[in-house]
Amino acid sequence: MSSDLDDFHAVIPAGGAGTRLWPLSRAGRPKFLLDLDGSGRSLIQQTWDRLRALVPADRIHVVTGAAHAEAIGEQLPDLVNVLVEPSPRNSMPAIGWAAAVIASRQPDAVIGSFAADHVITGDAAFAQAISEAVATARTGLVTTIGITPAGPSTAFGYIRAGAALSVDSAPSATAVDAFVEKPDAATAARYVADDGYTWNAGMFVVRAGTLLDHLDRLQPTLASGLRALAADPSRLEATWPSLTSIAIDHAVAEPVSLEGGMAVVPATFNWDDIGDFAALATLRGSGPGTMFLDADGWALATDDTLVAVLGLHDVVVVRTADALLVTTRDLAQRVGEIPKTLRQIGRTEF
Amino acid sequence: MSSDLDDFHAVIPAGGAGTRLWPLSRAGRPKFLLDLDGSGRSLIQQTWDRLRALVPADRIHVVTGAAHAEAIGEQLPDLVNVLVEPSPRNSMPAIGWAAAVIASRQPDAVIGSFAADHVITGDAAFAQAISEAVATARTGLVTTIGITPAGPSTAFGYIRAGAALSVDSAPSATAVDAFVEKPDAATAARYVADDGYTWNAGMFVVRAGTLLDHLDRLQPTLASGLRALAADPSRLEATWPSLTSIAIDHAVAEPVSLEGGMAVVPATFNWDDIGDFAALATLRGSGPGTMFLDADGWALATDDTLVAVLGLHDVVVVRTADALLVTTRDLAQRVGEIPKTLRQIGRTEF
Repeated sequence: MSSDLDDFHAVIPAGGAGTRLWPLSRAGRPKFLLDLDGSGRSLIQQTWDRLRALVPADRIHVVTGAAHAEAIGEQLPDLVNVLVEPSPRNSMPAIGWAAAVIASRQPDAVIGSFAADHVITGDAAFAQAISEAVATARTGLVTTIGITPAGPSTAFGYIRAGAALSVDSAPSATAVDAFVEKPDAATAARYVADDGYTWNAGMFVVRAGTLLDHLDRLQPTLASGLRALAADPSRLEATWPSLTSIAIDHAVAEPVSLEGGMAVVPATFNWDDIGDFAALATLRGSGPGTMFLDADGWALATDDTLVAVLGLHDVVVVRTADALLVTTRDLAQRVGEIPKTLRQIGRTEF
Repeated sequence: MSSDLDDFHAVIPAGGAGTRLWPLSRAGRPKFLLDLDGSGRSLIQQTWDRLRALVPADRIHVVTGAAHAEAIGEQLPDLVNVLVEPSPRNSMPAIGWAAAVIASRQPDAVIGSFAADHVITGDAAFAQAISEAVATARTGLVTTIGITPAGPSTAFGYIRAGAALSVDSAPSATAVDAFVEKPDAATAARYVADDGYTWNAGMFVVRAGTLLDHLDRLQPTLASGLRALAADPSRLEATWPSLTSIAIDHAVAEPVSLEGGMAVVPATFNWDDIGDFAALATLRGSGPGTMFLDADGWALATDDTLVAVLGLHDVVVVRTADALLVTTRDLAQRVGEIPKTLRQIGRTEF
């Protein structure tokens, strides 16, 4: 790598329950705390490891809710910087808070935001993408990392690349022509046939100052709240509820892309958000205690119990200590309806 | 009841694992020890209760294997007579042993044999059928109780009734024309359309002396072994392995029916052998911790865990502490393949 990363700070927003992975993930035990791929490390630990290879621990911030701060601290014993949100206010306040805190420490810092619950393989390719994204961000662009589509997914938004940029140390960076919402199947098929489209995985690399300047203009109430918070952390409880609850895509990425202020670096690493059990089944095989008789599909038990499936095809079975899911791979995207229904009927113990 | 039952002794052969009810039933925890219908009493306890309403405890014999004698003793604290088989030798040695023991105590005794793992509802109707069967057996006939078919089942053998008998106190008894093997579906449909066919549920009522006399003639080796055993119980270990392993249907019922020595009393009680999960699902609803979303079928957990089924129809889900079955109601008869396969691959812990 030609670029050094002395100005780079990583931000890990750790939120979201991952309801489509119920009963593995729960409100009280969200996806990022789980060792979903059987690697021996939880997803947030893997995220930490990947970023620690690039920056020292004191340049990694985790932003999370009070309910999970303790568990995260146990999983990441070297974690120094934890920002504990009094309540969930979506991604922009979380990342913006970290940006304001980091900017007050190092005014020219470049921050990169990476979800706590994604799986990435290809460390060198990841480092290369970050290096290019940081170099691009230093020019004042909000830079995202575009994921090469693994297929015509309708579960992700897409990034349409624009003209090539001429950034030193970032040969693959291009402008962003547009962010496009989750497409229908036909549109997705058209996108993946076109090299100019990548998946929006919500990874943003930007100078903290650039981000706050955009917010001053686009979300002034939020921006002043975040700056006040960074200046006086004791105001957290009073300030937090007043921050606009909005996603970074809507607050910054989309409007700035229309102004020509966004760049994209295409990723060459493998990425998976393990959005549902169909994705998890692709990532890992059935559990060792699984027996299919005239049957196939995917089954996992979190203990050493035996799972026997007879005569059902493409079935998904997930057994935890207190719950059991039986569905099909085709319906994996609908699993979130189960915890939603359980909340509605007051069975919050699950 | 006009008839008294002073000469009547009940025999309960308690064997069979009930492999089609895996994982509820196991080799080490057979079906008869389970409270399958959610009544609070196991099947053998229900069998005991039903017979104790007719005879005192000292006129009930349980014949079982060494592996289950202790558990049976715990479930039936008033049980006096237990005959413990050194190894399984099928139903004729088990019932014949009890017959020989009972005949040595009361030479004119009538015995009735009732499986430990069937569900019967209608106590008065059961008592009435026993009364008629005992009266018929006293005339020297081997008497069975025919179950009114609930449908064209191919899982049971059928009894074809012959001419009416004129037995005092047994107005509904008829001769048995023949025992017919489990039919195909078309034949079963024909049988159930014909009042003359009933299911063979393996209930036999016969004078102990009559049974032993038939065995002297039809299975002389077995008969002499059983008489020797009754005369000297200390010879059990030496004698038992020499006893012919044969079912009572084949040893006695079928050949004696050809000689005109069998009678049948049609049952008016409800009977169910709970042969598979389709039968159990008819007997009781899904467990309380079950949620079907765009799904239906039957699910049961033996603990208070939650079972959620999404988008599958007519599914059967059974969760125990150490195992899980997922199949469909249509395939319920094939569930026995699972424990069979587990034995083959050496996973005898399940």
